Amino acid sequence: MAEFFKVVTDRYDGITIDTAQQSFKDDAVFLQNLKGAVSEWKVSGKRGLWIKVASLHSSLVPLLTEMGFDFHHAQPGYVMMTLWMCDNHPNELPEYANQYIGVGGFVVNEKNQLLVMQERYGQNKKSPWKLPGGHANKGEDLIDTAQREVLEETGVECEFVSLLAFRHQHNYRFGCSDIYFICVMRPITQEIKPCPREVSDCQWMDLDEYISDPTISDANRHFALCYKENIENGFSIIPSKVLSFDKRVLNNIYSIKNIQDRH
Amino acid sequence: MAEFFKVVTDRYDGITIDTAQQSFKDDAVFLQNLKGAVSEWKVSGKRGLWIKVASLHSSLVPLLTEMGFDFHHAQPGYVMMTLWMCDNHPNELPEYANQYIGVGGFVVNEKNQLLVMQERYGQNKKSPWKLPGGHANKGEDLIDTAQREVLEETGVECEFVSLLAFRHQHNYRFGCSDIYFICVMRPITQEIKPCPREVSDCQWMDLDEYISDPTISDANRHFALCYKENIENGFSIIPSKVLSFDKRVLNNIYSIKNIQDRH
Repeated sequence: MAEFFKVVTDRYDGITIDTAQQSFKDDAVFLQNLKGAVSEWKVSGKRGLWIKVASLHSSLVPLLTEMGFDFHHAQPGYVMMTLWMCDNHPNELPEYANQYIGVGGFVVNEKNQLLVMQERYGQNKKSPWKLPGGHANKGEDLIDTAQREVLEETGVECEFVSLLAFRHQHNYRFGCSDIYFICVMRPITQEIKPCPREVSDCQWMDLDEYISDPTISDANRHFALCYKENIENGFSIIPSKVLSFDKRVLNNIYSIKNIQDRH
Repeated sequence: MAEFFKVVTDRYDGITIDTAQQSFKDDAVFLQNLKGAVSEWKVSGKRGLWIKVASLHSSLVPLLTEMGFDFHHAQPGYVMMTLWMCDNHPNELPEYANQYIGVGGFVVNEKNQLLVMQERYGQNKKSPWKLPGGHANKGEDLIDTAQREVLEETGVECEFVSLLAFRHQHNYRFGCSDIYFICVMRPITQEIKPCPREVSDCQWMDLDEYISDPTISDANRHFALCYKENIENGFSIIPSKVLSFDKRVLNNIYSIKNIQDRH
């Protein structure tokens, strides 16, 4: 029965089936073969079974649930379901990703003014002055997110200077956590063209005036004070490109560097 | 028809239905009411519809797919499906979390020796010396992950000193990214009791010997060099507890501090 399926095996004695890669006449055929294959895989010591169910084959979902499969994760177009086949051991299948990444731009111009904005959406009263920013797209580097979001929201083009700080927050959305990274940036253009959909107001604001504004969040005040501290002590958090374990790509590793070293 | 459902509304003109919170006779009743309700919600300007389908109700999945719903995310016990009801605008529903967090412990004792281990699982040849560590559990702070993983893998109890660096890596698993944070830690106990399931060998190794070991990864060598630099320049990345926007919880914000300041 196991021969019925095109499978991918992994080093944890797991098997993955992608329904989009299978040819089968109907759900009953798929299911019958699956039950036979699971018996064979159990005997041969396989442990985890992953089935990526394409939207097109979603009629399999209730049948797999009945067979003991649980949901693992989903993305537009598919749901991944899993079955732990190792009766004598607790389920060791790894969880799906559970962290959001957000990036805020801490954009300071030559007059020591900070680029700040007020949000438009869902606003009942005047929103406090915030930093422009947003969530990282899938696979996006922090620096690219910062440049993209600042440009989209404020119309200001920026270059990355250094990472300032980050906040780790739990129970953010769907029970996931959120890491909010703050990037110090230098404006290449000064003119503000706020995004009408997301931003109700946007301006350059004197940094000390911002710090003493009672309406801003404690986190934003903390970031501004960190910025002044970094400038004073001459150290900042800078990315270095370092080869991956398989030597095929360069990843960013962020660590403390002397700001003067860069010039 | 909209009255049939217990719904939660959000500030983005969205509606969430949890099937586990609904009482309905059968899927046909649920579906008929849903179709009517969607027409009403469209007229009233609602935009996103979220249905959290409990495993128990997974027979709804193919019916919702046919109605135009797509998968959004899933976790053990449920799959979240969404329908964008705003025909004139592109889908603006936010993506699910797409980042993993891993933490490595950079544990250095008083003799300037580093705690290093070799992995057991799926090992064909001798594994290079690595740092102990692993993935953050849902809702876990980085420091707690570091302490837990070092203890589980090596048997050594540690206290957190500072954050050293982090690596951002893309296309890690299921197309998600991974952030690997390195925590400098001081051992409270010295005796090594490696986890027999995960670790094949574990030892204290002279830091300079580690740096010059040709088999270690470029990233681990980079971390070790960062550590020496931090010690030399006296600055490190330290968390501060800062109140959340709603003033209800304290979040960790990590930024550069003078190491001397802490003593």
